[in-house]
Amino acid sequence: MEEIGKSIRIPYDKLKSEFFRILLKTGFSELRAEKCAEIFTMNSVDGVNSHGINRFPKFIKNIQDGFVRPGAIPTIVHRVGSLEQWDGNLGPGPLNATFATDRASVLAMENGIGMVTLANTNHWMRGGTYGWQAATKGFVFICWTNTCQNMPAWGATDPRIGNNPFVIAVPYQNEAIVLDFAMSQYSYGKLESFYKEGRTLPYPGGFNKQGEITSDPGQLLESWRVLPIGYWKGAGLSLLLDIMATILSGGLSTHQIQGCSSESRVSQVFIAINLKALHNFPAIDNSIHQIIEDLHRSNPVDSSSKVRYPGENVLLVRNENMKNGIPVNKENWEKLLNL
Amino acid sequence: MEEIGKSIRIPYDKLKSEFFRILLKTGFSELRAEKCAEIFTMNSVDGVNSHGINRFPKFIKNIQDGFVRPGAIPTIVHRVGSLEQWDGNLGPGPLNATFATDRASVLAMENGIGMVTLANTNHWMRGGTYGWQAATKGFVFICWTNTCQNMPAWGATDPRIGNNPFVIAVPYQNEAIVLDFAMSQYSYGKLESFYKEGRTLPYPGGFNKQGEITSDPGQLLESWRVLPIGYWKGAGLSLLLDIMATILSGGLSTHQIQGCSSESRVSQVFIAINLKALHNFPAIDNSIHQIIEDLHRSNPVDSSSKVRYPGENVLLVRNENMKNGIPVNKENWEKLLNL
Repeated sequence: MEEIGKSIRIPYDKLKSEFFRILLKTGFSELRAEKCAEIFTMNSVDGVNSHGINRFPKFIKNIQDGFVRPGAIPTIVHRVGSLEQWDGNLGPGPLNATFATDRASVLAMENGIGMVTLANTNHWMRGGTYGWQAATKGFVFICWTNTCQNMPAWGATDPRIGNNPFVIAVPYQNEAIVLDFAMSQYSYGKLESFYKEGRTLPYPGGFNKQGEITSDPGQLLESWRVLPIGYWKGAGLSLLLDIMATILSGGLSTHQIQGCSSESRVSQVFIAINLKALHNFPAIDNSIHQIIEDLHRSNPVDSSSKVRYPGENVLLVRNENMKNGIPVNKENWEKLLNL
Repeated sequence: MEEIGKSIRIPYDKLKSEFFRILLKTGFSELRAEKCAEIFTMNSVDGVNSHGINRFPKFIKNIQDGFVRPGAIPTIVHRVGSLEQWDGNLGPGPLNATFATDRASVLAMENGIGMVTLANTNHWMRGGTYGWQAATKGFVFICWTNTCQNMPAWGATDPRIGNNPFVIAVPYQNEAIVLDFAMSQYSYGKLESFYKEGRTLPYPGGFNKQGEITSDPGQLLESWRVLPIGYWKGAGLSLLLDIMATILSGGLSTHQIQGCSSESRVSQVFIAINLKALHNFPAIDNSIHQIIEDLHRSNPVDSSSKVRYPGENVLLVRNENMKNGIPVNKENWEKLLNL
């Protein structure tokens, strides 16, 4: 959410129509341009400009460079019971992922639980998008993606594992609780923001070239030795998420994904569970409410702030931005107008 | 794996027969005593005495105190498609969990993926047990449990969330890759070991009573403000694992589980995926092998050590202990003989 430089507020419709205009020009059909524009706009609305307006020019470049095929749609490779394996055919990551999310939900309607995998797909932008999509329709939802090699394994100095974003979402009071996190303690985008602002990280983010643990973002942008969450634990989780994405989809593993700038042909997994199928369905929303109420009773470290659940702040940001316009960097806005 | 005091080596059969003897005396049938003894023994064989011999007396005490019912077996509450909800009826956690693991695997045989939940069950001891069980039979396996309130939420000072152990396992070369970790950076057992040995933690483990981050295990045993892995990320993951365990099982949430000494009536989730059902099954073992080979090519920080996958070290320890006997603390062994 950090914005460097001058920020202006752009209304939802205006931002979305710019995305739509550019996507049409880049080879998307009207229907698909509309859907894709909506996803990018909502990412900015939710305060995640890094996967909204700020990322959009790179998304367009990856299309122009042939890594992302705007017209390609997923095709089914194999189905057994409540499990389906699809080929993403290098289609746009957000459209492939939103499709797979719906398919997993349909399978869960049929069988209680459903799983869809995607091989040969592209960067889905913000994983939380799909968590919100499924959970607001009544599904417990788990999904993850592998990435390029952007983090060293535990005890290693060279990046061979991915930061493999992982999402868990549950329905809550007609909205959702959505956890969306990568396996590195800080994203490279976050490190760059801190570096440009001359700030130190609140907690160490990795090792510098000398092998010392550091909170200096500049040293980490040099060393690429970012820290997995929980040290050996997050490194292990990253490896297992990659192994599962690879073998369940039949697609590429992190070590086979060429280059972090295009980060093409990634593998993804989507699991949905239909809460309405459970014996205790009528009690579920209240059960979650009790958990959240207990969480909110926490003694805060800082008495001026409140302990929040994942996604709680997103709802506040979303409402504010839908009302007052989306804060975007002025330069990025002008860059978009010229695309 | 830390052992304080004098250590002796006990052969597998000898340790198992002691467990068996005590379990019979505590109300287990022969068949169930045999299975339960095997699980406790294997935990010690694999180097996890904290959930093997060292934990066994507490397990027996929880039975004597009425928290665990040796003869109780799970009963089915609800089935829909490839999803089943069971009541654990306060049976022994390891037996309930091993049953649920097999059920999830059977459902996965039928439908590609299967999920079993357990309400009203007990501490499963070592989560990895069930990962090894399912993965060595050819299933990708995910399971987790909630726990008592033993960790503060992020930004809070009082423990309201659990450390909720989480397991992911995949088959590999007739064995398995098994990741088994709790959401706290260090377990209380680990903190106690470090404290007793007068050692400092390798990385900070939480906040002391003054709210300062610290690597001093003694201060953490006082404050109970242990650190979630990845700070806000692990705290979020802990919350979502508890919410899912609670609503999918219809059982108790962390905030409803009374007391960390008995830690009874926990909720658990078991998900199995049948690799044989996938179109790419014949290529899977080799695909994992390539991932592991790439991991092993990492440049180690310390040239005398090697980067390992989760569970790689367990296999070495297991082989060593099956051959030479299981290293156990002499006092704990004598305590067992007197039970």
